[in-house]
Amino acid sequence: MTRAQLTEHIFSKGSYLCVGLDTDPQRMPADLPRDANGVLAFNKAVIDATLDHCVAYKINTAFYEALGYRGWEVMEQTVAHIPDTHFRIADAKRGDIGNTSSQYARAFLQTLPFDAVTIAPYMGEDSVRPFLQFEGKWGIVLGLTSNPGAADFELQSLDSEGNPMLYEEVIRTVAGWGTTENLMFVVGATQTTQFDTIRRIIPEHFLLVPGVGAQGGSLKEISQKALTPEGGLLVNVSRDVIYASSGNNFADAAGLRAQAYHTEMSGLLLPRLRDIGRAPI
Amino acid sequence: MTRAQLTEHIFSKGSYLCVGLDTDPQRMPADLPRDANGVLAFNKAVIDATLDHCVAYKINTAFYEALGYRGWEVMEQTVAHIPDTHFRIADAKRGDIGNTSSQYARAFLQTLPFDAVTIAPYMGEDSVRPFLQFEGKWGIVLGLTSNPGAADFELQSLDSEGNPMLYEEVIRTVAGWGTTENLMFVVGATQTTQFDTIRRIIPEHFLLVPGVGAQGGSLKEISQKALTPEGGLLVNVSRDVIYASSGNNFADAAGLRAQAYHTEMSGLLLPRLRDIGRAPI
Repeated sequence: MTRAQLTEHIFSKGSYLCVGLDTDPQRMPADLPRDANGVLAFNKAVIDATLDHCVAYKINTAFYEALGYRGWEVMEQTVAHIPDTHFRIADAKRGDIGNTSSQYARAFLQTLPFDAVTIAPYMGEDSVRPFLQFEGKWGIVLGLTSNPGAADFELQSLDSEGNPMLYEEVIRTVAGWGTTENLMFVVGATQTTQFDTIRRIIPEHFLLVPGVGAQGGSLKEISQKALTPEGGLLVNVSRDVIYASSGNNFADAAGLRAQAYHTEMSGLLLPRLRDIGRAPI
Repeated sequence: MTRAQLTEHIFSKGSYLCVGLDTDPQRMPADLPRDANGVLAFNKAVIDATLDHCVAYKINTAFYEALGYRGWEVMEQTVAHIPDTHFRIADAKRGDIGNTSSQYARAFLQTLPFDAVTIAPYMGEDSVRPFLQFEGKWGIVLGLTSNPGAADFELQSLDSEGNPMLYEEVIRTVAGWGTTENLMFVVGATQTTQFDTIRRIIPEHFLLVPGVGAQGGSLKEISQKALTPEGGLLVNVSRDVIYASSGNNFADAAGLRAQAYHTEMSGLLLPRLRDIGRAPI
């Protein structure tokens, strides 16, 4: 999916919600089998119930790998169930020497029909570039993550005056390896004090922002700081949507929770729509 | 496998060779089918031919994921074929927020019988600790990698005097999260100028050293700098062993190439054996 297509989906739908399918068999309703088959049934029901309210899905590979190869097969069946009107992200946090990163890129962007894959930047340029070689496909590089461990290295200063921090250097450097058409960055919603800095470094790149919901980030605050005239923002919510109910009404509950995010996002998009002269949704 | 067991295997065999199974269907002999079934046949033959000369195998997950879920199944079948006398490494370079890293740890150290998994450190403590919770299992954290991209961030200075570099801070910090019994570090064989610094920071930790062979690192030089009285070193060779011949004699050729490394390593271990009062192998 190209940047223009993604932007059009966001403005025409009035949503920049990404639903994260971090499906853990232990958290599914008791009536579903706690195995790979159950995960597939759960995912299909959640996708069907939330399609109208989101523009993207993010599949967290860890939860599928924990189930062995049948989990990987269910990941394939899940992404195949998502229509190509929606941006499909493999949240895989891959990255390795060039010839190995090429294999990871092939795994997610060719063998599987994902539009994007998340990338860990530690190993530098030849570990990132292989993900940026596919027309209409994206690499989404970790910038500043939402977890407590972000303080260990990402937020460490690179000089004795306390500025810049590692994550700033990563974003600035990696931005030079791609374009706004094939490169996004992950910025955690819990890192609200850093969004202004980030938007100074990369005013136009799409940000993928996890950490709203279970991790506590504020949708309103990050939207005000990170939305651009072209949207430029995907906000991921995983647990708060997919586990909105632990009962057999889980899909309906997920749909309603996604709808609530959708409604809030439509309101937050209004000033941007006025800016570009589009009618409200 | 515990540290004591791994050390005993190294000294009794006279080898610290790890064979890397980065199996690419395009590089297999023409008589093997260029699919998942062919990869499994290739791997089994290479393992059988090299068992006597190495103490570890490293499976590069990218090459299996590129084949879809059947590739993941073949990865499971491959690791199941390696006897538990050998240290089994999932070279997966994983790392994510705590609850997701826990799923990755489960995938490789519980669902699959790997002894260790490689970890990217960018996301900090809560992304690493879940891999260190299993008795006799290991996390192997990226310190300084062998690829050109190591210069982009890993070798960048954290202060204006040019010292320490990011990778040093990573190794020093991460070492505090585990022990020499559950934590190793990846250091590329091409980074010979840094081994003395690394051994000052972590004199006892096992190092997993890729980059000998196709990437050009010197076995003799890294062994002299990195071996400890307890061994403390696994040197990985992938392409140079598994593609030693492109013909149908690939397994025999892999065995002979592994034997050559074994012989060289036995010689390099001699001074260490004298140090600890053991007879030469």
